[in-house]
Amino acid sequence: MEKRFSLTQKDVDLMRSVFQPRQLEKGEFLFREGEIARYEAFVARGFLRRYAIDKKGKEHIVQFAPENWWVRDNKGFSDNEPSEFFTEAIEDSQLLLIDQHGHNLLIEKIQGYGPSFQLGLQKNVVAKEKRILHSLVATAEERYNDFLETYPSIVQRVPQHMLASYLGISPETLSRIRSRTQIR
Amino acid sequence: MEKRFSLTQKDVDLMRSVFQPRQLEKGEFLFREGEIARYEAFVARGFLRRYAIDKKGKEHIVQFAPENWWVRDNKGFSDNEPSEFFTEAIEDSQLLLIDQHGHNLLIEKIQGYGPSFQLGLQKNVVAKEKRILHSLVATAEERYNDFLETYPSIVQRVPQHMLASYLGISPETLSRIRSRTQIR
Repeated sequence: MEKRFSLTQKDVDLMRSVFQPRQLEKGEFLFREGEIARYEAFVARGFLRRYAIDKKGKEHIVQFAPENWWVRDNKGFSDNEPSEFFTEAIEDSQLLLIDQHGHNLLIEKIQGYGPSFQLGLQKNVVAKEKRILHSLVATAEERYNDFLETYPSIVQRVPQHMLASYLGISPETLSRIRSRTQIR
Repeated sequence: MEKRFSLTQKDVDLMRSVFQPRQLEKGEFLFREGEIARYEAFVARGFLRRYAIDKKGKEHIVQFAPENWWVRDNKGFSDNEPSEFFTEAIEDSQLLLIDQHGHNLLIEKIQGYGPSFQLGLQKNVVAKEKRILHSLVATAEERYNDFLETYPSIVQRVPQHMLASYLGISPETLSRIRSRTQIR
């Protein structure tokens, strides 16, 4: 945050008091479907994924969250409603958690936090709109290139079957796209 | 807005000065793909749709906006980037337009406007996440029922082929779902 707006020592102390650290081992869940995901998480180290399971038991990954990403389930964070998603650590991860109360405190007390959060929300809306559009009009190859742009830091780390699930394609189609992309 | 937070006469005067009215006839565009959609629009009367066209020339509707909805292209409004969408009036419509400058003025001057806007953004993120999830896991019938919940005021007004495009199904599948739904 210090990169985006200036923080006094008092601001930093307040932040330390509202964020709580949380460690997850690979395969552990931050939240399961049906739980109220009250905390927003900042990923300090590691790598999470959010996914839903359909009636046939198939997983659908809606988001990856590597270092420096935020994970928030708005239904739980803002509306106290149960989550439709599983949030799981793909690698051992270190998180910083904040709840709605702490969040409101930061908006009230720290100049710059509110506008920065709002900017993040607007970027989030743009990204989601892009994902909706791409699920409708883009080819699998275009979606794969989007993934490379959005998540450059995890390309080498994400398991193939998870990437295929995120892109909505079969692992076979993915490996075909990858070999084509590497040739050019 | 008066329903959500109290407005002084000065607030109302400021609003009148930053919103500009705009009339669209049925079939007219507010913005075309490639244009910078600088204005957010409040739909006072009528009914808009936002859609993209894929490389084969097929339309994909991402949003309907009947009375009391807002239409905003975040790429244009916040980032000055060209839109990927067409925003078109399906019926004769009366809009109120506001640009980023006016928006910032309202946030600065009118207490309650900023938090209300932020709440709207968060709801928007939830709605878009639901749409992404449903495009992955829901049946066509579940998506149709979602549409009924989200847009009760336009069910009778929306042309069938547009509804099918929004749901990502063929008009034939839609008419089968509709007859099943009406029987129960």
